[in-house]
Amino acid sequence: MDYVVSDRVKTLKPSAIREIFKYAADPSVVSLSAGNPAPEAFPVDAVREISARILQENSIGALQYSVTEGYPPLRRAIWDYMQKKYNVGTDADDILITSGAQQVMDLLTKSTVNEGDTVICEAPSFIGSLNTFRSYNAKLCGIPLEEDGMNLESLENALKNEKNVRFIYIIANFQNPSGVTTSLEKRRAIYELAKKYNTIILEDNPYGELRISGEDIPCIKSFDTDGIVVYAGSFSKILSPGMRIGYAIAPKPVLQKMVVCKQGEDVHTNSWAQMVAHTFMTEYDFEGHLASLRDIYRKKAAYCMELLDKYLVPTGVTYHKIEGGLFIWCRLPENAKISMTEFCRMAVLRKVCVVPGNAFLTDETEECDCFRINFSTPSDEQLEKGIKLLGELAGEVL
Amino acid sequence: MDYVVSDRVKTLKPSAIREIFKYAADPSVVSLSAGNPAPEAFPVDAVREISARILQENSIGALQYSVTEGYPPLRRAIWDYMQKKYNVGTDADDILITSGAQQVMDLLTKSTVNEGDTVICEAPSFIGSLNTFRSYNAKLCGIPLEEDGMNLESLENALKNEKNVRFIYIIANFQNPSGVTTSLEKRRAIYELAKKYNTIILEDNPYGELRISGEDIPCIKSFDTDGIVVYAGSFSKILSPGMRIGYAIAPKPVLQKMVVCKQGEDVHTNSWAQMVAHTFMTEYDFEGHLASLRDIYRKKAAYCMELLDKYLVPTGVTYHKIEGGLFIWCRLPENAKISMTEFCRMAVLRKVCVVPGNAFLTDETEECDCFRINFSTPSDEQLEKGIKLLGELAGEVL
Repeated sequence: MDYVVSDRVKTLKPSAIREIFKYAADPSVVSLSAGNPAPEAFPVDAVREISARILQENSIGALQYSVTEGYPPLRRAIWDYMQKKYNVGTDADDILITSGAQQVMDLLTKSTVNEGDTVICEAPSFIGSLNTFRSYNAKLCGIPLEEDGMNLESLENALKNEKNVRFIYIIANFQNPSGVTTSLEKRRAIYELAKKYNTIILEDNPYGELRISGEDIPCIKSFDTDGIVVYAGSFSKILSPGMRIGYAIAPKPVLQKMVVCKQGEDVHTNSWAQMVAHTFMTEYDFEGHLASLRDIYRKKAAYCMELLDKYLVPTGVTYHKIEGGLFIWCRLPENAKISMTEFCRMAVLRKVCVVPGNAFLTDETEECDCFRINFSTPSDEQLEKGIKLLGELAGEVL
Repeated sequence: MDYVVSDRVKTLKPSAIREIFKYAADPSVVSLSAGNPAPEAFPVDAVREISARILQENSIGALQYSVTEGYPPLRRAIWDYMQKKYNVGTDADDILITSGAQQVMDLLTKSTVNEGDTVICEAPSFIGSLNTFRSYNAKLCGIPLEEDGMNLESLENALKNEKNVRFIYIIANFQNPSGVTTSLEKRRAIYELAKKYNTIILEDNPYGELRISGEDIPCIKSFDTDGIVVYAGSFSKILSPGMRIGYAIAPKPVLQKMVVCKQGEDVHTNSWAQMVAHTFMTEYDFEGHLASLRDIYRKKAAYCMELLDKYLVPTGVTYHKIEGGLFIWCRLPENAKISMTEFCRMAVLRKVCVVPGNAFLTDETEECDCFRINFSTPSDEQLEKGIKLLGELAGEVL
C-alpha cells in the first residue's frame, strides 16, 4: 500500500537529539548530548513516600478520569507559587496542566497557527519546540541571538515584514542550546515590540529555577498587563521529566482553545503525577529542594567549565560562560581546518557524543560552527573522559 | 488584544460530554452521562504494591526521560499478549505506547490527514474521536450504523465518492454510544472495501475485553495481511484511565510518522504508569482481573437493562441490548410529543443527566431521537434512582 503522509509532517524528521540519544545508549559512548537532569537531582524518597500515601488515601482519585484543565489543587499551588515568587499571572489569565511543557508549544501552535503562518524564534533555539512548530507547517523565522538576547532590529524587521506572525518563541533564561540569558532591557523591549505588532510571546522557562550565579531577572510574563504572553512552565528539570508535568499560564481566551485541543490529544495529564507534584510543592521543602538542585548544578557546571578551560580552550575552541541551565555552547576556532559537522562525526567515532549546532537552526542546512555540551547527565568521570576525548580530537584536527 | 484562532479549531467546541461531566459533578444530580469505569474495577491493591516496588527498585527509571516509542518491556508485553490472544500484529507492524488511546486518533490524523481530507466514521460515533478529527479540519463522513455494523452500501459510496478519504474509523466491539457490535461478515467486508479503495482502517477497541455475553469476534486487525489497519488499544477500561496508557499497533511506515508527531506533542508517556501496566500484565493475574471486570459489568449491565425494562420500556422508550461495553443507547418512541433534546433538558432539571444522541453525530444539528446511558459509573442505587426519574419524566411528557 502507498501510505499517504500529511503535508504538515512530510518533511519532519525524528529529532536529531533523540536519535543521538538512542545511539548514545551504547554504554561505551560518553554522551554529552542529552538534556536529562542529573539522577541525583530526583527527590526519590519524597516521591516514594508521597506516592504511597496517595495510593492509600486517594487511590480512586489517582486512577479515575479527571478534568482536562488539570488537578485543581495542583493548578492552585502552581498559581500561588508563580504569583508570589515571580509575579506571574493576572485576573485575565488562567492555568492549564499539560503532559510536559512540550505540550504547551504543541497546543499553542495547534490553536493559533494556520499552515504557512509564521513563528519567530531565537536562532539557535530548542530543537524540540522547533519540530513542534514545524509539525503544524509553521514557517520558522530565526532571529540572531546575541550575548544578551535576540537582535532587536532583526526582530522588529521580522514582525514588520513576515506574514501572519502568530507568536515569538523565547527561552529567556539559560537558553537551550546557547546558554544565553536575555537581559531585562531586552525582555522589556521584546514585550513592547510584541505589543506594538499585536503578537503573542511564548515564554518557555524550563530552567528558570536553575540559576547558579547572578540575580534572577523578571519573567516577561511578569510585565504582561496586556494579555499577550503565554508562559510555559515545567517540572521536568525540578522534579522529574518521566512524570511529564508542565503547565501554561495564559490569557483566558487563548487558554480555553488550548484546553479544547488538549481534550482531543490526551484528555488529561496522568493523575498520579499531578497529585505527586502537588504534595511535593505544598507539603515538602520545595524551596530547599530547589536550592539543593542549584548546588548540584553549580558544582557540575563549574567542573565542566574547568574541563573545557583545560582541554578545549587551548585548542582554540571557545564557549559561552553560563549562569544556569544544563548546557554549554562551544564554538570551533575561526580558522578550523574541518567543519563542525565533521568534528562531531569524528567525535562519535572516538566514542563521545555532542549535538551539532545546526540541529538547533530553523534551517538545518545552514552553516554553523558550534556544538552543544550537556553537563547534567554524565557523571564527573564521564564528563572528564568525554571532554578530554574532545580536546584530543580538537588538538589533532582543528 | 484580538486573539487569532487557527482555522482548524475555530469551530471546535469543548466536548459536550466533558461539559456535562462538569455539570454532573453537582452531587444532587444523578449522572448517567459519564464513561468512567466503575470505581470497584480498579486493582487498587496491586497498583499500590507495584508502584512501591518500582519506586524502590527502579526509581530513576520511573523518574527520568524515556524514549518516545514507549517503555520497551511494556511494548513487548502488549505485543505478545495481542499476538497470542487476538492474532494481532505482523512483521510489518510495530507498536507505540501513547498517552491514552485518544492520542492514537490524534497522531494518526495529524500524520495522514490534510485539512479538508475525509475521515469516514460510524454514525453515531464516539464524540472524543470525532472532535480529534475535527481539530485537524478533517471532513467527517458518517455511515449509518445498523444492528450488525455500518451499512456497506453507504460505506462503498463514500469510499468511491468522497475526496481524499484517509481512513475509516470504527469501534467494532460494543460501540460507543450505540452498543452495536460489528458482525464478522461485516468486519471482513469492511476490510475488503478498505483494501479495494486503498484506505486505512482505524480500529479503536477500548471495550473489547469487556464482553459480558456471546463469543469474541476476531479483530479487523487480525485479518491485516495488507498493512492497512491501525489498531488502537487502551488500558483505560481494564486498568485505569487516570494513568493515560494506550497504544497503537500499526504498519511500520505509518507508526514511524506517528512517533515523530508524538515527540512534538509530549515527548513520551508517563514512565511510572508504563512500568505499572507492564508489571500488572506480566506478574499479576491479568486474565483473572479481566474476568472479574466482566463479572462486575455483567451484573451492572443486567441490572441497568432490568431497570430500563421496568421504568422506561412501558413509556415506549426502546433500547439496544448489549453484549459488552459500558453504554446503552435508548430511543424515544416514534410518536413522542417532545424532542430528544427537550427530553434531555427536562431530565437535567429533574436532576438526572444523560447524553443527547446528536452529540455523537458528525453534524450535531441533525435530528436524533436517541440518548446514551452509562451504567458503569453510578452505584446501583444511583442507577435505580436515575432511571426511575427518567421513567417518571417519560411517562409524563412523551
